[in-house]
Amino acid sequence: MYQELDPAKAYRLLESGPVLLVTTSDGERHNVMTMGFHMMLQHEPPLVACVIGPWDHSFDTLQATGECVLAVPTVDLAEQVTKIGNCSGVDVDKFAVHGLTAQRAKTVAAPLIRECIANLECRVADEAMVERYNMFILEVTRIRIDGARAERRLIHHAGDGVFIADGEAVDMGRHMKRWRYLMDD
Amino acid sequence: MYQELDPAKAYRLLESGPVLLVTTSDGERHNVMTMGFHMMLQHEPPLVACVIGPWDHSFDTLQATGECVLAVPTVDLAEQVTKIGNCSGVDVDKFAVHGLTAQRAKTVAAPLIRECIANLECRVADEAMVERYNMFILEVTRIRIDGARAERRLIHHAGDGVFIADGEAVDMGRHMKRWRYLMDD
Repeated sequence: MYQELDPAKAYRLLESGPVLLVTTSDGERHNVMTMGFHMMLQHEPPLVACVIGPWDHSFDTLQATGECVLAVPTVDLAEQVTKIGNCSGVDVDKFAVHGLTAQRAKTVAAPLIRECIANLECRVADEAMVERYNMFILEVTRIRIDGARAERRLIHHAGDGVFIADGEAVDMGRHMKRWRYLMDD
Repeated sequence: MYQELDPAKAYRLLESGPVLLVTTSDGERHNVMTMGFHMMLQHEPPLVACVIGPWDHSFDTLQATGECVLAVPTVDLAEQVTKIGNCSGVDVDKFAVHGLTAQRAKTVAAPLIRECIANLECRVADEAMVERYNMFILEVTRIRIDGARAERRLIHHAGDGVFIADGEAVDMGRHMKRWRYLMDD
């Protein structure tokens, strides 16, 4: 039931601002962290800007390997997402503790998370703003979607542990002109 | 019914990734554009990264004045938000055409939008990434909330004119440790 999505369509998953899990692998162990500060930076090639700081155990691994996976959780994972954001991979194997299953990615060594509806494989494209703002710029190299999931509502961190789940969809596509060329299905 | 919110709480409005309206003023005329690519960059002082490019009529004014307002629309404004994103301020007075009311800000010359639930006054803090990525870094200098609005659901652009309105709130604050110090109410 897994489907590939063109990496150039990353904005469909990320522009709405869902909280993400970020996985890295140092070759010996996987780690995972929660991330709320990220944005689409450019449609094509698909670039994502995000904030991962030295206070995150993943920071060193991301710098050393230049690879990560952005995994998109749905509302049923809200408690795990919060707990993952409140403990450090220095102390524990967060995949095991939080009941997540690592799966092999295709373009990076960092693992996919089976429990997430989408996984975006990424490589670091630009580190120029890491020193000043802990901002990494990532290029999306592959997207895998789990088409079989019943729960599809993403969650958006409104701060302080409050998440807002996706609600009603409002389709204004009929008023779109400037970005029509991006719509091919 | 207007309330001031500490600028250091900007993340409560922006981290969930709502689509925003951005206003600028060149001293003669106001302009407004729709923006989906933005993120919280830092809690305090509150910095926001966003993408505004030379294809946007607001780009020159933002560079020249170093000031803008990030206005947060709710779901009842979805059609206006879309239409504003699909026409240019070169041709029309977008405030008049789209039924928006400009109000005077306190810390910047760009106008607030009365119809929006929140308005964040901002000044450009860093233009180092404008040339490469059209990325501006803004510091939030004042936040005004409209406490009287009945409709409070923000909208999140999922791409191609589809907006997702805020749904169910899931409060996981009991599991929060790392950012507890930011919670004071």
